[in-house]
Amino acid sequence: MATQNVQNLTSSSEKYASSFNKGSLALPPAKKYLVVTCMDARIDPAAAFGIELGDAHVIRNAGGNAKDALRSILISQHLLGTREIILVKHTGCGMVTFTNTDALKVVAENQGVGVLSGTYDFQPFPDVEQGVRDDVEWLKSNGAVVKDSAISGWVYEVETGKTKQIV
Amino acid sequence: MATQNVQNLTSSSEKYASSFNKGSLALPPAKKYLVVTCMDARIDPAAAFGIELGDAHVIRNAGGNAKDALRSILISQHLLGTREIILVKHTGCGMVTFTNTDALKVVAENQGVGVLSGTYDFQPFPDVEQGVRDDVEWLKSNGAVVKDSAISGWVYEVETGKTKQIV
Repeated sequence: MATQNVQNLTSSSEKYASSFNKGSLALPPAKKYLVVTCMDARIDPAAAFGIELGDAHVIRNAGGNAKDALRSILISQHLLGTREIILVKHTGCGMVTFTNTDALKVVAENQGVGVLSGTYDFQPFPDVEQGVRDDVEWLKSNGAVVKDSAISGWVYEVETGKTKQIV
Repeated sequence: MATQNVQNLTSSSEKYASSFNKGSLALPPAKKYLVVTCMDARIDPAAAFGIELGDAHVIRNAGGNAKDALRSILISQHLLGTREIILVKHTGCGMVTFTNTDALKVVAENQGVGVLSGTYDFQPFPDVEQGVRDDVEWLKSNGAVVKDSAISGWVYEVETGKTKQIV
């Protein structure tokens, strides 16, 4: 039997398709940029960051983590021609609330000991603004990232809906 | 000087924040599900899949790749309580258009030989529907993924705006 979330996707999709008129957009992003941000449920990148359909790649993971996004960034840049990276972390991020030790303990309680290596790195980080600066620096010094890329770092405020540039 | 994309983010964000009234949403997704989909510029998950702000984690990478998303999925499930995974790949995906050899050649041309290991895996795949089935199977057999998770697999049609269930 379909879950409520599956039922919602099915009905929402039918409604969306019934008025859809953007079926001829090109594969490469029209505005040649990519956004890396967090998977957090309180972020709607298209609405909050003004991304029109077809304009930008949007990469999302736990923390808006640049290292975790590298494969996608390289494909976006080298195969699909993007030349600008906008990285957005956010206030109230879950990634600053736990350590690897905490997370490994919960996984072991839920799934059994040993399903993950004891050195598995969930990549938590202690400070959001410093995390933005560190990730931008890491991207700028990565030899595989296109050298003349514009790279900026931002914090989205889940409390206010504002997005502020950090670097 | 700010790029056009930075100027767009700044002005769009001000407008979004001026009517924002969802500043009190909880960190854990209200509907306890997560969506994995592609970074493709032609997909707006909130609109196309009916995701209300605060309801679901949204993980996006090149290909809507489950393996690449695993760190984020485990954090979503074990630390933030989600119990359902909806995986959506799409028609016209760039990931079916190149091989690792192709991609490594382009990176070497753009950045110089040796910036990536010759065994770097961009994780291209040859068929979208089979890719959905393979990723769902991989998630179901992964010992760290919560055992009683509902997991479904879908294809979004960039030509029509429709999303169809595969598995």
